[in-house]
Amino acid sequence: MIELIGRFDEFRAQIQQLESSSDGWLALGDVKLRAPVSRPGKILAIGLNYADHIAETGREAPKEQVWFMKASSSTSGPYDAIQIPKASPESVDYEVELVAVIGKGGRHITRDAAPKAVFGYCVGNDVSVRAWQRHSPQWSIAKSFDTHSPFGPWITLTDEVADPHGLAIRCTVNGEERQASNTKNLVFDLWAQIEYLSKAMTLEPGDLIFSGTPGGVGWARKPPGLLKAGDIVRCEIERLGYIEGKCEDE
Amino acid sequence: MIELIGRFDEFRAQIQQLESSSDGWLALGDVKLRAPVSRPGKILAIGLNYADHIAETGREAPKEQVWFMKASSSTSGPYDAIQIPKASPESVDYEVELVAVIGKGGRHITRDAAPKAVFGYCVGNDVSVRAWQRHSPQWSIAKSFDTHSPFGPWITLTDEVADPHGLAIRCTVNGEERQASNTKNLVFDLWAQIEYLSKAMTLEPGDLIFSGTPGGVGWARKPPGLLKAGDIVRCEIERLGYIEGKCEDE
Repeated sequence: MIELIGRFDEFRAQIQQLESSSDGWLALGDVKLRAPVSRPGKILAIGLNYADHIAETGREAPKEQVWFMKASSSTSGPYDAIQIPKASPESVDYEVELVAVIGKGGRHITRDAAPKAVFGYCVGNDVSVRAWQRHSPQWSIAKSFDTHSPFGPWITLTDEVADPHGLAIRCTVNGEERQASNTKNLVFDLWAQIEYLSKAMTLEPGDLIFSGTPGGVGWARKPPGLLKAGDIVRCEIERLGYIEGKCEDE
Repeated sequence: MIELIGRFDEFRAQIQQLESSSDGWLALGDVKLRAPVSRPGKILAIGLNYADHIAETGREAPKEQVWFMKASSSTSGPYDAIQIPKASPESVDYEVELVAVIGKGGRHITRDAAPKAVFGYCVGNDVSVRAWQRHSPQWSIAKSFDTHSPFGPWITLTDEVADPHGLAIRCTVNGEERQASNTKNLVFDLWAQIEYLSKAMTLEPGDLIFSGTPGGVGWARKPPGLLKAGDIVRCEIERLGYIEGKCEDE
């Protein structure tokens, strides 16, 4: 998949031909959708990037972008189960996020060039183990438990999303709305994110950027709304579809 | 390489046969050694894990292990140049570290089972951009600049290192000793590290663990000893060999 993304210009015409033929189609209900990129080279995720989420954490708005990483082994498919891990069964939380999939990528990508570095967009859930987030100031392990980076349901190409910064974004747990915002409310927008990251590192085809979550996360609610076995977590973004996972004890 | 590591038991006899034949050998000076694993699935790195390094940072000894991640795109070969990046030309620092390469790996690996989860060991340099480390409490981006995870010179298999916790470890810059310790001084040893990490995530073949750096890093020295173009950074560990990189302006 990473190869396909990196060489998409070469394959595009062939794929469109397949798309317009009527042979060999399967109904969506007859297939199991897996993670659109099974092992991304890297998963970069920004914290504290919607004003209402910053407020609920009790923190100050950061002056610089706050980035952590999620392990590529934490990816899972859009409808896969979310593990409630033995290591911390009572602190698992949801975070709906707009995910950008890097296409051409590169280094030192300016804000103006950033839209062309992206291949497409997904809905993601930055599942977080809050008790482990308190082990140290570093968040990466608490965000990297197995099955804790579901995304999908597929990659919506950039030419189908003129502007990723005007999409309704929402998370429900057992049908109850927990998060509801719009990607126009990102503090640092995707182009600023790509500009910042690519000053440090080459962004490569298939890399993922989790762009931040709005207010309404479970641990900040009164009473807290953390996840337990049996809960159904649905994350949706306008035009990109939804992902939905059932929580299951490890 | 990841495939080879994951299925090493199947290939071991063939490799040993090649090793004992006299055909097709190249002199070490005639080849360019690249990163032993070019794109590890994940690179996990622990901070504040030698007492003298904790002391020089002015921090308290952490109660829990402090983990961050390094992007797999930051790997480079054992003798490759280290970029002094345009984004921060005056804050690049060295950190010599013992690196464990995961073999079979797994989840919920106990301390007793941990030695069998490892494939071998390397010398690594956890190159760090200190100015970016101060952008936010999260360290992962500051540790993930391109070329900032050189390691090697090759993988020394576990059967050649009975105990990884008694090896002299050293870093020199232009021949001047900057760091000198022994891996017996790790606060959390490798087995404790593997036990902790695998409670959260599956460790997979080819994953890297950077196990912490001893005291003597550049920014904590008086006067500071940060890196500039032309500097030669050599990191060595008893029985594992050395890696050596020249700093070059990006």
